[in-house]
Amino acid sequence: MSETPPASPGQQDAPYAPTARTVPTRARERASYDRELVHSVLDEGYVCHLGFVRDGAPVVLPTLYARVGERLYIHGSTGSRPLRTAGATDPGMAVCLTITHVDGLVLARSAFHHSINYRSVVVHGTARRVTGADERRTALDAIVEQAVPGRSQDSRPADAKELAATAVVRLDLDEVSAKVRTGGPSDEPEDLALPYWSGVVPLSRGYGAPVPSDDLDPGIALPGYLARL
Amino acid sequence: MSETPPASPGQQDAPYAPTARTVPTRARERASYDRELVHSVLDEGYVCHLGFVRDGAPVVLPTLYARVGERLYIHGSTGSRPLRTAGATDPGMAVCLTITHVDGLVLARSAFHHSINYRSVVVHGTARRVTGADERRTALDAIVEQAVPGRSQDSRPADAKELAATAVVRLDLDEVSAKVRTGGPSDEPEDLALPYWSGVVPLSRGYGAPVPSDDLDPGIALPGYLARL
Repeated sequence: MSETPPASPGQQDAPYAPTARTVPTRARERASYDRELVHSVLDEGYVCHLGFVRDGAPVVLPTLYARVGERLYIHGSTGSRPLRTAGATDPGMAVCLTITHVDGLVLARSAFHHSINYRSVVVHGTARRVTGADERRTALDAIVEQAVPGRSQDSRPADAKELAATAVVRLDLDEVSAKVRTGGPSDEPEDLALPYWSGVVPLSRGYGAPVPSDDLDPGIALPGYLARL
Repeated sequence: MSETPPASPGQQDAPYAPTARTVPTRARERASYDRELVHSVLDEGYVCHLGFVRDGAPVVLPTLYARVGERLYIHGSTGSRPLRTAGATDPGMAVCLTITHVDGLVLARSAFHHSINYRSVVVHGTARRVTGADERRTALDAIVEQAVPGRSQDSRPADAKELAATAVVRLDLDEVSAKVRTGGPSDEPEDLALPYWSGVVPLSRGYGAPVPSDDLDPGIALPGYLARL
């Protein structure tokens, strides 16, 4: 993956530049353009919600993604509608790709101030089909690694037929923002004496015990990268 | 909530009618229009990804939602862009609302057959501002209840000023589909003897111990509906 140059050489540490559509109209204090924060939110997930426009109407579909430097990659069947569209259109397809981690339920004394703690990243841009063999390999490995680090080296790589059936699409990290809410509820001062519990219920995500395939050779042990999850 | 009539009276048990945009071009066997399945996926979540079109480009934002019968409700500040748009446009705003639960990582011997187990629901339709006081109250209670059942009766209801600052938007469940993948990997027969672990890593979601606000009266015990989470 180190062969892939960043989308914006020399900009590795600078924040993303805010644009009209990445500056929220409200709760602006929650918005951030910090590159490290954006990367950390992206790197913690592997399922995004991809939005695009079809026949003038919005479509939002969940899909796997990977970050490689300043690029996001998604993939899919060459027969799937969004990937066909991204491939067929020149110069690409306008997309909005959103990743959200929900961290806690925020319970205020007032119904109005109920909220959630979360970290989200919204990426606006143009999805473009990747055609170079090396970049396609890099992207496909990265998509497997994003969900299960260590796995891409412990599975059979795609063969020519599988590669031909797989579309890879790239979205540069350029017009990007994060939004984060943390902490407890923001109750009105006059509500503090109300007899309602207030605070945060943290949410957790975890892994269950891996379930081997029925036809797995019993001599194949659980690999370390799965045991460590 | 029982006062709110279903969007399609008499259709409570029938599946949703497939349309051109709810029939996938691939993996059709994963698509379902079963009303009970759609409801169960919707009822298990409370954060959706809402897609709409602004200046011709897609926008996808995470937001809270609630299901009440055959309607979904979302809410937000009257100053937020999507809700302003839904209110300002007649006859409403075209949206796509998607909910996804990720249940497992599916590890095949081949990189190509890696997948995830998931349950998602995609709703296409028109979001319309709700103006009736009763329906707005129902919706706002339902949004709190969707995340924390029992909470709407154990918090201060919105006052007139808060209600005036809150936009409520409705989306009827009409053009809807679910998509579900379950089970183990689908390896190619010729890959079964490869020396790679294969199977499923289940994913779990849970709640941490509730964290009371610093200023909570220590005499207020954790309510049962939170202790049971």
